[in-house]
Amino acid sequence: MSKPPAAPPRRPERAATAHDVARRAGVSQSAVSRAFTPGASVSAATRARVEEAAAALGYRPNLIARSLITRRSSIVGVAVAYLDNPFYAALLDALSVALEATGHRVLLFTARPGANTDPILEEVLRYRVDALVLASVGLSSRFARECRQAGVPVVLVNRRSEDDGAACITGDNAGGAALIARFLAAGGHRRPAFLAGLEDASTSREREAGFATELAALGFGPPLRAVGHYDFGRAEAATRVLLSAAAPPDALFCANDHMGFAALGVARREFGGLPVSVVGFDDAGPAGWAALGLTTYSQPLRPMVDRVVTALMRQMLAPDEAPLRETVPGALLLRGSAREPHDGVSLQDGERVWRG
Amino acid sequence: MSKPPAAPPRRPERAATAHDVARRAGVSQSAVSRAFTPGASVSAATRARVEEAAAALGYRPNLIARSLITRRSSIVGVAVAYLDNPFYAALLDALSVALEATGHRVLLFTARPGANTDPILEEVLRYRVDALVLASVGLSSRFARECRQAGVPVVLVNRRSEDDGAACITGDNAGGAALIARFLAAGGHRRPAFLAGLEDASTSREREAGFATELAALGFGPPLRAVGHYDFGRAEAATRVLLSAAAPPDALFCANDHMGFAALGVARREFGGLPVSVVGFDDAGPAGWAALGLTTYSQPLRPMVDRVVTALMRQMLAPDEAPLRETVPGALLLRGSAREPHDGVSLQDGERVWRG
Repeated sequence: MSKPPAAPPRRPERAATAHDVARRAGVSQSAVSRAFTPGASVSAATRARVEEAAAALGYRPNLIARSLITRRSSIVGVAVAYLDNPFYAALLDALSVALEATGHRVLLFTARPGANTDPILEEVLRYRVDALVLASVGLSSRFARECRQAGVPVVLVNRRSEDDGAACITGDNAGGAALIARFLAAGGHRRPAFLAGLEDASTSREREAGFATELAALGFGPPLRAVGHYDFGRAEAATRVLLSAAAPPDALFCANDHMGFAALGVARREFGGLPVSVVGFDDAGPAGWAALGLTTYSQPLRPMVDRVVTALMRQMLAPDEAPLRETVPGALLLRGSAREPHDGVSLQDGERVWRG
Repeated sequence: MSKPPAAPPRRPERAATAHDVARRAGVSQSAVSRAFTPGASVSAATRARVEEAAAALGYRPNLIARSLITRRSSIVGVAVAYLDNPFYAALLDALSVALEATGHRVLLFTARPGANTDPILEEVLRYRVDALVLASVGLSSRFARECRQAGVPVVLVNRRSEDDGAACITGDNAGGAALIARFLAAGGHRRPAFLAGLEDASTSREREAGFATELAALGFGPPLRAVGHYDFGRAEAATRVLLSAAAPPDALFCANDHMGFAALGVARREFGGLPVSVVGFDDAGPAGWAALGLTTYSQPLRPMVDRVVTALMRQMLAPDEAPLRETVPGALLLRGSAREPHDGVSLQDGERVWRG
């Protein structure tokens, strides 16, 4: 086999400029610029002439150079802590599609759970991102202040910050957890337990509080408790401890689906079938797989991502308004991993749900 | 509750410059630049002085502006087709971490399976990315040529291109599939079937050819066949058709794990237990979950991502060398979803494997 031809130099000798394209198309340079700006006003005929000339000359608008003029990079930084959790992979996918529709691209930052993310976020700002989305990543008040000073909108998803200068879009942690408590009680469970995520995460704290408060209102004592730290292996270990107890729980509410999958495996493989009802929170993709079938309270991706985009746009266009802080309601989806009450089951979009 | 204070203007009145930092730190402007360039030579004392002055002034180097001078953006474009497939989510995570270690960040592009990706890739080039990684996304020869002209290295992962100007890092599609054929034969299976992915994807074609060729060498006729298009729902439907046949298969090799999870669900929930052995390809995270347990041939992420980074660096630093085209070997991991031969099972890194 012959060696492929030597690669050309890293950049072409002289790249075509907007000026070259304008001359060839017989239009103004500003028309060329508008033709390549999403949403800018330009006639179809002009756009076609510009695109034809650009193709002939191999012209490609330099978004990076443009960002120095417009002070917009068309880039949104997205920090995600858990890509091994399928809920966040799906969230990232949906975010990428939604932001693309607004003319933005995602610059990805992976953070390690529990680690201090300030150094990473500092770096994000050096890329002059137009905005920042933090998915299950904490926001220090110091960094929140820096972002405000730099004029970079920040939206938290599935995490609430104490600092009310940042927008937060969350699922219905308290309401969903209370519904799960009523569901387990109505299903005849006597010894419910809670499998906590990271102790300092607002998601885990709010879900636990909603669950325990509702159980108390129903006359139960404080639920049994173990901590899985939102980690698969540690959730397996915590489930083993709970199910090996002298008086094991008969129901286990896991603070997210990812830990629910771990609990299901331990219950089914190590404790003979499913001696305990398992309920998750998220409706991550695999929860709906027939081979798994995890009953769970959903955090609906589409509406959540829509609200994230709305929150970003609002901060960009109306920085004087208070940032959006919204709770998106979900539904309790019945997939077979928990014993069900006789009443209250209905169908919604082809899924069996429990409304209490 | 009182309204939060009005947000400041989008950009501060006058941002601190490298010049301001140099003056305050009492060093040259070039020392400031070196202090913020990963890998650049600068003494620890100078770096500390610069960082202190930068912090005091709120200075943040503008990577975007720098990229116009260095002609490097420190950004690598990554296009992924299937984020709902956990294998690609994990690949993206590992890539992001590995590229970060080389001073790069990931600009994410999500492509739809089977769609023409040229328009998206065109846009990637406008961001002046330093390089492009395509994960299970096809590369047209037209676009490959454009990237060569623009001097942008391209590496394909888990997809092979006809064009030998692009680097390709793949798992051992042919070897792994042949091993699965020997494994199923040794386990006493008589009617093996293949569940194909996208018909035009090199992964599906190479796995099918390796499987069928080895089965023929073992004296089997052509395997039964159905097409799942790498789509969960279509893989479920294809499995239903295969298992409902008058003479159903007794083993099903799925072209990837994601379809394997679909097949497992249909077999277990709709055909009473596991009447058929199911084997996947990838070792996506959930394959190892106790609640699923999918026997599969692995594509080891760490070595694959290491090779991707090596391939990128080689093209950046030695563009005259032929691009890397490498196959990374995996292992057949036994997780219980397929009947096993009596012989040939051993332990490797705590996992049961079959070496044939």
